[in-house]
Amino acid sequence: MDIPDLRWWGWGTLDRTFPLEGRPRFWPMLKGWLGLPDDLRHRPPVPLEEIDLRPSRLDDPVLVSLRRLLGEEAVRTDKRARVEHSCGKAYRDLVRVRAGVVPNPPDAVVYPADEGQVAAALAWATERDIAVIPFGGGSSVLGGVEPEPGERPTITLDMARLDRLVSLDRTSWTARIQAGARGPEVEAQLNEQGFTLGHFPQSFEFSTLGGWIATRAAGQTSTGYGKIEDLTQAVRLVAPAGIVETRNTPATATGPRLLRALVGSEGTLGVITEATMRVRPRPPLQDYRAFLFHHLEDGIAALRELLQHGPRPTIARLSDPPETASLAVMAHEHRGLRSLFDRAMGGYLTGKGYRLVDEEMTDRATPGAMDLSTVSVFLLLGYDGQPGPVREHWRRALPVCRDHGGLALGRAAAESWKRDRFAQPYLRDTLLEAGVMVDTLETATSWSNLAHLYEEMTAAIRSGIQASGGGPGFVMTHISHVYEWGASLYTTFLGRQVTGREIEQWWEVKRAATESILAAGGTLSHHHGIGRDHAPWLEEEVGPVGMAALRALKRAFDPAGMMNPGVLLER
Amino acid sequence: MDIPDLRWWGWGTLDRTFPLEGRPRFWPMLKGWLGLPDDLRHRPPVPLEEIDLRPSRLDDPVLVSLRRLLGEEAVRTDKRARVEHSCGKAYRDLVRVRAGVVPNPPDAVVYPADEGQVAAALAWATERDIAVIPFGGGSSVLGGVEPEPGERPTITLDMARLDRLVSLDRTSWTARIQAGARGPEVEAQLNEQGFTLGHFPQSFEFSTLGGWIATRAAGQTSTGYGKIEDLTQAVRLVAPAGIVETRNTPATATGPRLLRALVGSEGTLGVITEATMRVRPRPPLQDYRAFLFHHLEDGIAALRELLQHGPRPTIARLSDPPETASLAVMAHEHRGLRSLFDRAMGGYLTGKGYRLVDEEMTDRATPGAMDLSTVSVFLLLGYDGQPGPVREHWRRALPVCRDHGGLALGRAAAESWKRDRFAQPYLRDTLLEAGVMVDTLETATSWSNLAHLYEEMTAAIRSGIQASGGGPGFVMTHISHVYEWGASLYTTFLGRQVTGREIEQWWEVKRAATESILAAGGTLSHHHGIGRDHAPWLEEEVGPVGMAALRALKRAFDPAGMMNPGVLLER
Repeated sequence: MDIPDLRWWGWGTLDRTFPLEGRPRFWPMLKGWLGLPDDLRHRPPVPLEEIDLRPSRLDDPVLVSLRRLLGEEAVRTDKRARVEHSCGKAYRDLVRVRAGVVPNPPDAVVYPADEGQVAAALAWATERDIAVIPFGGGSSVLGGVEPEPGERPTITLDMARLDRLVSLDRTSWTARIQAGARGPEVEAQLNEQGFTLGHFPQSFEFSTLGGWIATRAAGQTSTGYGKIEDLTQAVRLVAPAGIVETRNTPATATGPRLLRALVGSEGTLGVITEATMRVRPRPPLQDYRAFLFHHLEDGIAALRELLQHGPRPTIARLSDPPETASLAVMAHEHRGLRSLFDRAMGGYLTGKGYRLVDEEMTDRATPGAMDLSTVSVFLLLGYDGQPGPVREHWRRALPVCRDHGGLALGRAAAESWKRDRFAQPYLRDTLLEAGVMVDTLETATSWSNLAHLYEEMTAAIRSGIQASGGGPGFVMTHISHVYEWGASLYTTFLGRQVTGREIEQWWEVKRAATESILAAGGTLSHHHGIGRDHAPWLEEEVGPVGMAALRALKRAFDPAGMMNPGVLLER
Repeated sequence: MDIPDLRWWGWGTLDRTFPLEGRPRFWPMLKGWLGLPDDLRHRPPVPLEEIDLRPSRLDDPVLVSLRRLLGEEAVRTDKRARVEHSCGKAYRDLVRVRAGVVPNPPDAVVYPADEGQVAAALAWATERDIAVIPFGGGSSVLGGVEPEPGERPTITLDMARLDRLVSLDRTSWTARIQAGARGPEVEAQLNEQGFTLGHFPQSFEFSTLGGWIATRAAGQTSTGYGKIEDLTQAVRLVAPAGIVETRNTPATATGPRLLRALVGSEGTLGVITEATMRVRPRPPLQDYRAFLFHHLEDGIAALRELLQHGPRPTIARLSDPPETASLAVMAHEHRGLRSLFDRAMGGYLTGKGYRLVDEEMTDRATPGAMDLSTVSVFLLLGYDGQPGPVREHWRRALPVCRDHGGLALGRAAAESWKRDRFAQPYLRDTLLEAGVMVDTLETATSWSNLAHLYEEMTAAIRSGIQASGGGPGFVMTHISHVYEWGASLYTTFLGRQVTGREIEQWWEVKRAATESILAAGGTLSHHHGIGRDHAPWLEEEVGPVGMAALRALKRAFDPAGMMNPGVLLER
């Protein structure tokens, strides 16, 4: 159900923050690296009451008819609800909403109670030429849930009330779950019966099953459990053209796979109301450990060997030197981990040829001048399962890591990552407040193309930040979501905001990054989706015939083009 | 490339047969079970020269233009080529072609040399409103490659010349392979470099990569290697609307998955010319073993445990009592295996509570009177890999089988199956000649629904055979292609042919079988596809909106409806 104190201008809930105070190393270092001025102006978000919001374009009789259909409580037009549902959680969303700029709020936010009400709302909207946006957790970072500019009114369907585990098939390891269930709701209901979906994206606390399926999400343990498309056995979707339910079968040969068109449909074909998910018994043990490798390519070689020859990890996350440096500095500030990175430990590591961060890098950080290329790389690796098999996996995995120069750091660093794994997005809010441009992007490619893509993309983002006036910038990447055939790259980039043109600046960097990814053979997105921001490049990914096919699909499900217009397919 | 001595009226090549002579037990027993008359009339196929074939509807100038485009050798209009390409290898195809009935042969058979020639042929055909059928090995059992009745001329594109391994990425374990490569061509070229695709359908020797992808095929080792859709990383397709190539990436989140619409497209969207396939190092060891279980449900329970808790087998094939009885009788006739099933062995098995076949069942077989329900069930189980891991898998798998009452029979019976695994379809030709109706069908469902589907389907087919005038009939099934979430069922049914109405009779049984499958929650097909025969039920599988979506896709790729018309989507 609804989360009461959502932070409408940032990530998560209002009661949680990621302060920079009490981080004596990380923040000064980052300021040095990014070349931020000493006298940072703090820019708090504009208060809700100061936002000048366009009134709802649905007049009273229209709203009355909707309320009569769905119930009084199910239709909200108050400012808070409309602002909260006006955009996702992309950098450019937060820049705007923090500045009080909310140009296209939905005209009403609707909370259907069940699938019948979803269908009723769609019929009601069709009759009145009103656009409909399905809304899960609203954590899109690509503009996937924002109303289209223009004259046509828009309602947002917040799926929060469809949050139930409908049924569990303990024999077949499948569970039918309503699409509006958020991560914790999915897991709590499954855990109660001894099962897990095993899907833990960073947005876990605030994203929904339907949103995951609609955007082809990947969780942190996707290497072991699979991406959401691997976990989705059947989908039920209410489209303007009617209800579609794919057959609940482990496999089929009945023509082009419709299920795979609904997965990834991003709200443009209809509203996903339920799905039959592949679940597994909840593992009694999660044994996650950390390693250091001398070079990124050593870590990549170890991962590739584990994926291709086993034992396949449940989770694998390999940070490049800049990300490792950041993690190390942050870890140093963490009480429980300090010992790992203190002088003595540093000396030990240096003796073994590994390097994390030193005083030159942290205390005398000069914009653009630091060389992180010799920093070691951090690998988080883990196995879920019964104690016996997990022990056996480690018995085989440890030598693989060792053979590639991996130094076992033990479980503490991994546990620390696990504890904080959903907290990172809160840091973004803090950085935004301090005038830092910060965004993430992701792609995937084959093993043989991975280093090339990494280098091209990193160089393009760095130049992009500099060309945009963002200073030297900081670009860090990890490899996660690993396959026998290749891997994904997940990049975070930071730079100085150029006041007054934050969105244009960000867009210049985003464009440079995206073009370099496609030119270097990466895919446009591995798990964030298309939304509005990637839509201009979709044709480069799928070709003109592919575009025609996607448009034809859209027309079949949504002849009037009322579902999430402008998302996925540009108008 | 082309296979010279294909049996145009049956399976495979003319030099191989599966005679009933020298089978002193199997054939009399089957005759008894089916209630065949003693004085069987043998019906050899009508010789090619006696077939009265409609002349090609392409006149000389039209053919000259095609030959000018593709070369003299690339266009054939001779009787043999046109008859060979007039249908697939379904029961109803063979009944007709054996009787010399070839109502809709293609007007020319075209052998493009490369993708450019495929595109040229499509452009040539578009201009002249000529239908085009992509043809791989022609082993469709659902009418997937036969020309449509009616006025419009048809050419068949035989892809045999596109048979090369284009490139191998040893790092990423992917191989780019041309679509016309037959199983042995795929494997020989990969094996030479130490790799395998691991896809071995029963049609392996005569089916192609493009055909497998177009029909969503499954090989005998799909449990370990995956179905063809799991092995297909990217596809290149020439459509009337243009060339489509999906991005070569291990995973993506770029909207509805186009790749999954090309896989399963059955020649209706365009011609698959190349694909990037996921390959694996060729395993040094294949250790396949056989087991007996007391009851079908015991074998199912063992399989489910192996899939859900490991070790996941490379191959798993569990025969029901009737199939086990057949295998046992055939094995008895096999010199190397006789010892296993002789009286002493029979006594040993009986002592342990297992039952195979006895004299009552073989020597005094009475139509419809035999009770096979107490026959034990046969499981073929195997692991591919390095000797160490394979040994370890067996160390864990043997107790799982034992716990469910499985009796290890060793490797001989499994090796015998492996040796003969591509020979079974030849038996069908022999049975057809003796007046036996014989067909196979397949489906899949979740574990919890498997027994229900098996029982419903078996009962419906049995009644269908009897109602069709086919005598008591014989229905046998195996469970293969096994998943964490469920399994496929593969059924062979036999009955007495009703002379003069063979097709109608078969269609009655097929209809009863298909309706029972759908009513009992199975999928319309697990790996044979839709073709023409399943097309009337596709809407029941995917729903009216799903049908509209499939039709919309078709129009986007093939606006003039010239690609394999009538297949997949009824006209």
